[in-house]
Amino acid sequence: MRHGAVPPRVVIVGAGFGGLTAAQALRRAALHVTLIDQRNYHLFQPLLYQVATAGLSPADIAVPIRSILRRQYNTKTLLGEVTGVDKAARLVLAGDRQVPYDFLVIATGASHAYFGHDDWAPFAPGLKSLDDATAIRRRILLAFEQAETSDDPHERRRLGNFVIIGGGPTGVELAGAIAELSKKALIKDFRNIDPRHARIILIEAGPRLLPSFPERLSARAKRSLERLGVDVRLGHPATSCDARGISIGEERIDAATTIWAAGVAASPAAVWLGANKDRAGRVIVSADFSLADHPEIFVLGDTAAAKDPAGRPLPGVAPVAKQEAHYVAKIILARITGRPAPKPFRYKNPGNLATIGRRAAVVDFGWLRMSGFPAWVLWSAAHIYFLIGFRNRVVVSLDWLLAYLTFSRGARLITGTEHGR
Amino acid sequence: MRHGAVPPRVVIVGAGFGGLTAAQALRRAALHVTLIDQRNYHLFQPLLYQVATAGLSPADIAVPIRSILRRQYNTKTLLGEVTGVDKAARLVLAGDRQVPYDFLVIATGASHAYFGHDDWAPFAPGLKSLDDATAIRRRILLAFEQAETSDDPHERRRLGNFVIIGGGPTGVELAGAIAELSKKALIKDFRNIDPRHARIILIEAGPRLLPSFPERLSARAKRSLERLGVDVRLGHPATSCDARGISIGEERIDAATTIWAAGVAASPAAVWLGANKDRAGRVIVSADFSLADHPEIFVLGDTAAAKDPAGRPLPGVAPVAKQEAHYVAKIILARITGRPAPKPFRYKNPGNLATIGRRAAVVDFGWLRMSGFPAWVLWSAAHIYFLIGFRNRVVVSLDWLLAYLTFSRGARLITGTEHGR
Repeated sequence: MRHGAVPPRVVIVGAGFGGLTAAQALRRAALHVTLIDQRNYHLFQPLLYQVATAGLSPADIAVPIRSILRRQYNTKTLLGEVTGVDKAARLVLAGDRQVPYDFLVIATGASHAYFGHDDWAPFAPGLKSLDDATAIRRRILLAFEQAETSDDPHERRRLGNFVIIGGGPTGVELAGAIAELSKKALIKDFRNIDPRHARIILIEAGPRLLPSFPERLSARAKRSLERLGVDVRLGHPATSCDARGISIGEERIDAATTIWAAGVAASPAAVWLGANKDRAGRVIVSADFSLADHPEIFVLGDTAAAKDPAGRPLPGVAPVAKQEAHYVAKIILARITGRPAPKPFRYKNPGNLATIGRRAAVVDFGWLRMSGFPAWVLWSAAHIYFLIGFRNRVVVSLDWLLAYLTFSRGARLITGTEHGR
Repeated sequence: MRHGAVPPRVVIVGAGFGGLTAAQALRRAALHVTLIDQRNYHLFQPLLYQVATAGLSPADIAVPIRSILRRQYNTKTLLGEVTGVDKAARLVLAGDRQVPYDFLVIATGASHAYFGHDDWAPFAPGLKSLDDATAIRRRILLAFEQAETSDDPHERRRLGNFVIIGGGPTGVELAGAIAELSKKALIKDFRNIDPRHARIILIEAGPRLLPSFPERLSARAKRSLERLGVDVRLGHPATSCDARGISIGEERIDAATTIWAAGVAASPAAVWLGANKDRAGRVIVSADFSLADHPEIFVLGDTAAAKDPAGRPLPGVAPVAKQEAHYVAKIILARITGRPAPKPFRYKNPGNLATIGRRAAVVDFGWLRMSGFPAWVLWSAAHIYFLIGFRNRVVVSLDWLLAYLTFSRGARLITGTEHGR
């Protein structure tokens, strides 16, 4: 780059796995990078369910974005909520700020979607943010507290029923963690109730759990959950949901706690961009993740509708977002240096993992499929490895080791209030 | 106790240092103990300022009451908000529950008081609960974030001003921690502002900091704070406080963040009991901490107006509450077993400690007074020692060691919203 030339400006919206990886991949480039997020931290979402079930603290799985990027001097971090994009003027609109760009990367992820049942949202909260997680933790812990003080046997039973809607990895992991909380961690804590009598009901509309895994591992996951006492219901969707419980067709299940783990919708990026989207709201992108008529705008991760060479949509997991981010960074670097564009993108699946309670998991690497305790050890090691921040690795390892040895849960705090958080 | 006799019922309200200690001191007695608190955790208040300044996580200094008392089988824990006491019927009223007692111990602590300036509360929040601490943490961190994105130099200066009202231990510790946060932990994180330019102003109406310490140590604390860049203002009270800042007489200080560390008032226990109280709302108690006309009702800790033999009021610190709790437990045990009452209560002061930033403290044991780094090592060891829970001791030690070596702060998360928490 010639002396005195103004470096091109890259604006990245979203500091999840995709946006953060894109920023880091551009760290040595002669660029001005601006990373905008509505939160001040990067969240390690795969462990969010452990915050919701009192196994970990929020700070264990979240790191301030500024501190991750503090030594990346070509990059600014901006706390702000993006409300739109002016494609003609090449401006990102964030409140009353306008941030100019030469390249724009949008990686704003997804939030939970209720498939036309938006009225269920207050009764069946979803799990996408730290505030969601501490709110769900409060609901779960308060249900036990209220059962302890209730004199009404029916109400006590309702407070002891926990319904999870959705049998993907989040639903499976939540069900396993709540089962262990009630059947192990809490058993000595109460005098009037026996937390082991809590019923955990996992509802999946499809024919099997973990549809992205091979069928044999789905069956193993179901068996592991049932061994923990979880009531797994396959093949029937929830048909209604209110403050007192849910219905599956004719059957009514009274429950004080219902958690939504069934569906996600992309963030409103398609609306900001005026771009074509699929049914889940994901932006339709070209093979290089740019918009067809705007080669300077890229969309990736859960926000984009990307497909593998066989035409199947890529799953909404961290490795997809990270690999796409590396690819997009390469394209931007090629364009500013005049080098040829990289070869077409190909997703390399590093494997699927899901954990069930304290000592079982299912792992699918394609060439290796396993379940049970060895899979759990592998799951733990992989998650510690990918956690950012030395302190967090040590604290999470310690918490898991203690939980493994004692079944205790270190973060059983009821904080905040139901209204506002 | 004769077989078949119903054991006397002791109800303890409040699971702070006083209430929890009283419950634990009764663990081997033939009693039914019920411990009622409006929160599900015991809070280690002396380290609350570290949560407010992003050094520690809420779960590091809070332990579920149930898990502390899980093996104490004569004791029930009740999550509930006490609203009154029926002294004639011997009932504690908690919502729609009525909890009968033979002995009642009230240890509900204190909350911040604004001395007739209740309208200052929204602008200068106090620090008494975990929710207070995460709310203050959010304000402090957001001030830096907003300064980073502001183009108005005056607004930027206002955002960089932090006012702490009150020069007792909480105010001194907060000022030191915010100074270190801005002058060490954050210095590489921002691109548009230099966090070292933040001004931390500590206002004390009285003539010196830490009035409960010897004068020499007050002077040392002032010097240590000034070395950290804190602007210490003695001898003048804040005269007004609003959303934009505060005034000290004629002088106006614009500040986006103001924290109240100036005064406390006892909980409403005196109102529940219809008892005499002093100016700070503390219940006037007999020498054995019971009410004059109700020997079965005891009030202790920050809720009671207790005096030493010289007639000076006992300070509102953890050792006072704990020693009073042990004493009250002895009286209850003496009464139920018919043994003679214990000798009159005498407070044994184990020493006063306060810390200033990362490596200075003041310590006053009477026979030993010290300051600087050795005092800081002693302060750290004492706080680790008194923390409850093996996990918390390890995690806090680790966080402090890391902070000491790297100046980093592990819990810099902006969570919740301004309205509701």
